[in-house]
Amino acid sequence: MPELRKDPVIGRWVIISTERGRRPSSFASVTRTNNAVMCPFCPGNENATPPEVMAYRQPHSEPNGPGWRLRVTSNKYPALVVEGELNREPAGMYDRMNGIGAHEVIIETPVHARDMDEMTPEEVRDVLWAYRERMTDLERDIRFKYILVFKNHGEVAGASLEHSHSQLIATPIVPKRVAEKIEGAKWYYGFKERCIFCDIIRQEINDQERIVKDYDAFITFEPFASRFPFETCIIPKTHQSSYLEMSDAEYLTLAECLRDTLRRLKLALHNPPFNFILHTRPTSQEYHEFFHWHFELIPKLTKVAGFEWGSGFYINPTLPEEAAEFLRNIDTSGQARLQRSKLSGDGG
Amino acid sequence: MPELRKDPVIGRWVIISTERGRRPSSFASVTRTNNAVMCPFCPGNENATPPEVMAYRQPHSEPNGPGWRLRVTSNKYPALVVEGELNREPAGMYDRMNGIGAHEVIIETPVHARDMDEMTPEEVRDVLWAYRERMTDLERDIRFKYILVFKNHGEVAGASLEHSHSQLIATPIVPKRVAEKIEGAKWYYGFKERCIFCDIIRQEINDQERIVKDYDAFITFEPFASRFPFETCIIPKTHQSSYLEMSDAEYLTLAECLRDTLRRLKLALHNPPFNFILHTRPTSQEYHEFFHWHFELIPKLTKVAGFEWGSGFYINPTLPEEAAEFLRNIDTSGQARLQRSKLSGDGG
Repeated sequence: MPELRKDPVIGRWVIISTERGRRPSSFASVTRTNNAVMCPFCPGNENATPPEVMAYRQPHSEPNGPGWRLRVTSNKYPALVVEGELNREPAGMYDRMNGIGAHEVIIETPVHARDMDEMTPEEVRDVLWAYRERMTDLERDIRFKYILVFKNHGEVAGASLEHSHSQLIATPIVPKRVAEKIEGAKWYYGFKERCIFCDIIRQEINDQERIVKDYDAFITFEPFASRFPFETCIIPKTHQSSYLEMSDAEYLTLAECLRDTLRRLKLALHNPPFNFILHTRPTSQEYHEFFHWHFELIPKLTKVAGFEWGSGFYINPTLPEEAAEFLRNIDTSGQARLQRSKLSGDGG
Repeated sequence: MPELRKDPVIGRWVIISTERGRRPSSFASVTRTNNAVMCPFCPGNENATPPEVMAYRQPHSEPNGPGWRLRVTSNKYPALVVEGELNREPAGMYDRMNGIGAHEVIIETPVHARDMDEMTPEEVRDVLWAYRERMTDLERDIRFKYILVFKNHGEVAGASLEHSHSQLIATPIVPKRVAEKIEGAKWYYGFKERCIFCDIIRQEINDQERIVKDYDAFITFEPFASRFPFETCIIPKTHQSSYLEMSDAEYLTLAECLRDTLRRLKLALHNPPFNFILHTRPTSQEYHEFFHWHFELIPKLTKVAGFEWGSGFYINPTLPEEAAEFLRNIDTSGQARLQRSKLSGDGG
């Protein structure tokens, strides 16, 4: 059973999850599995994953067999586990609880080598719908305070398998970074009686300097205080506190926006490793007025070193305004070219 | 001139430092410099660094020439610059200030291939003295609120040069992570009227489970809520809020402790990349009662992925108690063996 432990000074919770495997002696010789040999996310290998939680499938196809276009399963090496009661207990001056939660994998496509930006808008929308469906289901479990959806692309970004997938973790506490955003947004709301994110959107549209693209319902922009080069935010232009508030059709618009943004990043930075993270309000309704959901996209281009870990502030070597201009000017029709050169092994 | 920008929601400052070089187009083709060709930190190459700020040298040797055993210079690619007035100004709803600060490099040894754990205790003490000397000097500059000393070892940990060195950054604000520790420690002090770090030391000595080694004046232990496998803390057993409070002799004891800890980590984990960070109280005296200086050592063994960035909480696959036991049982006399096998290129 994983365990949650709280840092007594900072108040940050850490998941100690030895089921994910690293005994002290195992760090000495790290070997990598060869994904090409047998990908557990490819059709025909369904028994290599835990049983599916849900899937979008062809009519009459059987669960845990082929015939799916999207599949959600529990993570085989979960950071948190669903079964059990939530126990909070002291350990001397320290605090811990058992690692109750959910950890699921969204296998986005049956095709082994198809990145999200290469999918059709409808395929990406299916992924976004799957996020919604799983979040809606897990929100009913009162043990969970927050549901975090994220995606790691590329080994450097933490992806252990290359077959395109996202992950979802439901946690019994609101994670620190989300809590900080909520606290900041609440403080601003108390002062201004306006959503801080709505004000940011207003200023970004007014300034135009950091906007990558203005879609109908969303904008993409490089945050004023970006921690990383090409850190990009996708946010709905009208106030929505929860990712679950969109109409069915709006998920397709969001899919087009996400796909286009990933394509720009891929073309601009030659297929960089990246993470994206969905920040929505916690499951409770009370955050509605001042929180505003959004995606954070972070290409992994720089190393996070001692200064960043020690100080919690970041050195970004690229002006957000220059990154935005660079991404604005990307010719996304060049995508076909990149794909071809990738397939032929003829790097540009 | 670098620029400091504040995240409007979270309140975290980011350094935008384009002088460190990455124009948007430069990410496409990353080339690495070959350190072996010409190391700017080796004797004879003093003109490859900015002029030295201080040095420990042989009598009659000239500044910026050979004859030194330790040398401090400004960073050639500084994240913050010393010259100028501190201007705080709004940018619409956002906040920024110019990037005033100091960024120095402590070249720890003239020997190109000598890690800190391979130095003599006296050589490590010289490094610790140099930290003290530079911190004492920079504390006099009222523009600086905090002075952060850190070390990156290995490319994965962010070191761009392999010649052993540490860095120091003086910042015009107290960095967020330090501010969080201060806030937590202050809150605890308000409640208990005791230093939280002193209470942690008491519990660790009592539990014995996470202690790596109990030295006379210091202990090393794996924090209860370690974010990373083998995260290790070095802390003085008696209450000292500032790193500058030690007697001359105590720096030698600390040097022996730091050297032994680095040796244990090297032997246990086969020379892992690592960062260490010195957390001391801010330059102001007001933090004396509740802050307690310490080193954080973080071997870089796991990848930080989307979940960690998005949530701010960490998944640690190794029990701190098991890591502590593993480090306790390391035979540090094996060091000679490791050095030999490294030199002969015959990896064990």
